[in-house]
Amino acid sequence: VAGKLYPEGVTTNSEDGVNDIPALYPVFERMAKEEFILCLHGERPGVFSLDRETAFLPVLEEIATRFPNLKIVLEHVTTEAAVELVKKLPDTVAATITVHHLYLTLDDVIGDKIRPHHFCKPVAKRPEDRAALLAAATSGNPKFFLGTDSAPHAVETKECEAGCAGVYTAPVAIPLLAEIFERQNALDQLEGFTSFFGAEWYGLPPNAAHITLQKQEWIVPDRCGTVVPFRAGKKLTWKVT
Amino acid sequence: VAGKLYPEGVTTNSEDGVNDIPALYPVFERMAKEEFILCLHGERPGVFSLDRETAFLPVLEEIATRFPNLKIVLEHVTTEAAVELVKKLPDTVAATITVHHLYLTLDDVIGDKIRPHHFCKPVAKRPEDRAALLAAATSGNPKFFLGTDSAPHAVETKECEAGCAGVYTAPVAIPLLAEIFERQNALDQLEGFTSFFGAEWYGLPPNAAHITLQKQEWIVPDRCGTVVPFRAGKKLTWKVT
Repeated sequence: VAGKLYPEGVTTNSEDGVNDIPALYPVFERMAKEEFILCLHGERPGVFSLDRETAFLPVLEEIATRFPNLKIVLEHVTTEAAVELVKKLPDTVAATITVHHLYLTLDDVIGDKIRPHHFCKPVAKRPEDRAALLAAATSGNPKFFLGTDSAPHAVETKECEAGCAGVYTAPVAIPLLAEIFERQNALDQLEGFTSFFGAEWYGLPPNAAHITLQKQEWIVPDRCGTVVPFRAGKKLTWKVT
Repeated sequence: VAGKLYPEGVTTNSEDGVNDIPALYPVFERMAKEEFILCLHGERPGVFSLDRETAFLPVLEEIATRFPNLKIVLEHVTTEAAVELVKKLPDTVAATITVHHLYLTLDDVIGDKIRPHHFCKPVAKRPEDRAALLAAATSGNPKFFLGTDSAPHAVETKECEAGCAGVYTAPVAIPLLAEIFERQNALDQLEGFTSFFGAEWYGLPPNAAHITLQKQEWIVPDRCGTVVPFRAGKKLTWKVT
């Protein structure tokens, strides 16, 4: 929403974000009245990449405090600081967590070779940040639910001199979640995180369609059309049937 | 040196480095006696990428203290912490600085798109780290001198799913140094940094060959053979004639 609505007076300093947040307050007020939900990519433009999410957190806190009736989702959180703030804020504020941020740290992007298929925004952060995301996802706290942010960029837009941000997790998302929840002894929390907490928070009925997960090994294909999926060529231990 | 000499008893935990440093002490002792110079890629294996250099600094301090006659170069420093430690340690310890680390931060690698031609090891760090490198390079302190670490990787080994580390600065190194030293009002420090401090520290005569720099615009080629040079396609303001 914040990226699309530019009422008169809103200034931006980059193509990626809005900097003059107070200019959006009339929008937020109306959104709260209309029961619209504010979905935020919470990174502050112009800040050093690794600090962009934490630099946005005071803005989130200010919006949540000023508009107590506005429901806000902080999308694809990547830091321990964001997790802690979302826990602390009222129940109007929730957060989504992607599958790839439960697996990756910055080391998987630039720690050894440089791996464009692991590059996304916000970029994966430190091991302690990933640990905080995993703890939140498996905790059963309904403020944290799945948002895959799966992004199918064609291989030539990733493996090039300036690759796009995004990880294509759609074909592997649920099996990978099962695998990491199992490793955390939290399989009983998987359905809430993937299927119920988000719907409940949005005030929607749960999806009527069902999928079944089986413990079964399979190899992720190297390509899905022109896209390299997350964990391409790797063996997974759960399969959607 | 540390990467090549594995006396009996030295253990490594990765292809990239030696972890059992005390096992190398007999080597360092002999090196000091023979007046060999210890050139270190100072990153601690197994540590989160951004912390590898700072995690190595206590090791450097220990070696420098134990072997007061051993000359040590900490190659291609990337952090303010490394600059501060090298300043503090005795004159047996010096550091090299690359051209690309005077220009890049991590934002140029993963801040917007992902840019494999800006990826090197140690990876470029924060803006305040780059500022510390620039201050050291232009300070006239002879403990800091140029080491380009220029790495010509073919384009297909950079623009791929797992790109090699290294920046090819050789064709642009001296003009870019002139540009950034000029911007710092430190052109008078350029010759010391590039041509004298390193030779003096190694106890070698300065290079007898001369080059001339002229204030003249030119465009860096998109390719040098199969390699994309640093600042490909960009306009430079100094030229070697």
